[in-house]
Amino acid sequence: MSLGEFDLIAKYFDRPARRNPLGVGDDCALLAPAPGMQLAVSTDMLVEGRHFLPTVSAEALGHKALAVNLSDLAACGAEPLAFMLALSMPKVDEAWLAGLARGLFALADAHEIELVGGDTTAGPLNLCITVMGQVPAGTALLRSGARPGDQLWVSGQLGLARLWLEALHGPVALDGTDFTAARLAMELPNPRLALGRALRGIASSALDLSDGLLGDLGHVLRRSGAACHRDRTPLGAEIEIDRLPRHEALARQPEPIQQLCMLCGGDDYELLFTAPPGAHGAVLEAAAAAQTAVTCVGRITPEPGTRVIDRNGAPIATPWASFDHFAGPTP
Amino acid sequence: MSLGEFDLIAKYFDRPARRNPLGVGDDCALLAPAPGMQLAVSTDMLVEGRHFLPTVSAEALGHKALAVNLSDLAACGAEPLAFMLALSMPKVDEAWLAGLARGLFALADAHEIELVGGDTTAGPLNLCITVMGQVPAGTALLRSGARPGDQLWVSGQLGLARLWLEALHGPVALDGTDFTAARLAMELPNPRLALGRALRGIASSALDLSDGLLGDLGHVLRRSGAACHRDRTPLGAEIEIDRLPRHEALARQPEPIQQLCMLCGGDDYELLFTAPPGAHGAVLEAAAAAQTAVTCVGRITPEPGTRVIDRNGAPIATPWASFDHFAGPTP
Repeated sequence: MSLGEFDLIAKYFDRPARRNPLGVGDDCALLAPAPGMQLAVSTDMLVEGRHFLPTVSAEALGHKALAVNLSDLAACGAEPLAFMLALSMPKVDEAWLAGLARGLFALADAHEIELVGGDTTAGPLNLCITVMGQVPAGTALLRSGARPGDQLWVSGQLGLARLWLEALHGPVALDGTDFTAARLAMELPNPRLALGRALRGIASSALDLSDGLLGDLGHVLRRSGAACHRDRTPLGAEIEIDRLPRHEALARQPEPIQQLCMLCGGDDYELLFTAPPGAHGAVLEAAAAAQTAVTCVGRITPEPGTRVIDRNGAPIATPWASFDHFAGPTP
Repeated sequence: MSLGEFDLIAKYFDRPARRNPLGVGDDCALLAPAPGMQLAVSTDMLVEGRHFLPTVSAEALGHKALAVNLSDLAACGAEPLAFMLALSMPKVDEAWLAGLARGLFALADAHEIELVGGDTTAGPLNLCITVMGQVPAGTALLRSGARPGDQLWVSGQLGLARLWLEALHGPVALDGTDFTAARLAMELPNPRLALGRALRGIASSALDLSDGLLGDLGHVLRRSGAACHRDRTPLGAEIEIDRLPRHEALARQPEPIQQLCMLCGGDDYELLFTAPPGAHGAVLEAAAAAQTAVTCVGRITPEPGTRVIDRNGAPIATPWASFDHFAGPTP
């Protein structure tokens, strides 16, 4: 590398730690969660060609690599503390590194999370971020807490990132404004940290939507079923298709495209959560306090399986209703 | 992937967490450091072709990927708690994954550290591990604590892993026994966790030797100088070449090869640490309690620069004595 590893770290990534006892530069970083807090930890790896295109701007990539990790903290209701960055790249490109650092630290500063360590090496482009946050012991939002009768909620809007992929690779044509909106949804997801924290003690379960609503909902149904049924039978869910919140760019598309993008979309990074019907008002208040839109889109059922229904409760004829949670959609 | 991501995780990597409140399977893992403890965190990324050859066994790779991370915890004096594994691989090879898991968990179990989460994705082979350990607040061994007059110590033996590289790529010929010893030094480093913990309160500074003695020593000299000199002038060191501990396979080599391997070797994963002369006996007792060999190899000096000397204190004519801590050896 033209710029040495240590120079590179010093120039782009070494900022003094303020919230944490020891940041970049020693064998380990040191963190001190407050008394009574547990540490929430998550890691996500982004690989060029699989999670992002070579054409994405470094700044957007820096934002997204941290955002998808922060989204996991949000889904646990945790407050961000620190993150580690491991970066493998074919060559040192200073303009690219400066952009990456800009995107990364803008989002980090917005959520008061500090980069406290990492690793840089030569190799195919790969970003691996590990985030650490804290949550009062026993209050983390888990995937396993949904119960039959709970209402099913989502934050924000669904399917816009997938619409961008359909426009890039599929038959969908978007005008300039819609294309930009869809691209920004894919590149600059907004981790719902304030909402996640506000839902502690209110939501019965939560996770973040990274692989699509039906697939991710399956994790909640399986884990919650395993937690409340002796034979570990999964729970089920009903989703009212008309209630699913969608951006106007998506609402302009034919119905099958809307369904595909909202039900199987991926890359939404919205929260999917459940709460007892009696907590309906509390959910709305928490969302208002967090300045985040939320929508009640269905409910948890005792019998397994996910049914997509219309406003009259009739199952709708969507190929996605038979979604296999392991193999993906099977239209 | 033939085996789905979730099946793969369940089959090879999902084991119940015992030490930590929540392990694999939710958006985050949950950790609870004991009261009064700080969390020590480190991450290392291993890339095929750069950190390991495609021919290395999966089991050895699993061991080494975790060992190099545990070595960072050892260098801080931390007790391991949990680790995350992010794994990018071109295709799902079950025999390979089983071997990787075997190597990984054998070392994890030996040090009672739990895999609590991670990420798997398709892409060029890349392993990124983040380790978390705990250390009583204020007792972590840092790189910045060395002071002039301190003795300089190393654990174990130096240079054997580099000797293997010299035999693979260079002019060195090794017989079968020596070649195997050198290969095992490269593939199966032994993180010095017991020694690191035993040195808390005794050593003034520590780090682990991953890039070679002279280069890594430079980090200690710069950070310690910055911590004790108002103008941040680095400290210096004298190393007695004859005291450096070496395996008999290395001792059989010509002197220049020995010097290269021990001074600039890399991949030793031994601890380099300093302690005041008055703590000499305490260091030996700590090492005996940790059942780890240690050797006093020199001392820290107030004037900057690293001098390699013979047993009479005369500088020896070694090209490595002019080692540049950024550009590498300059023979």
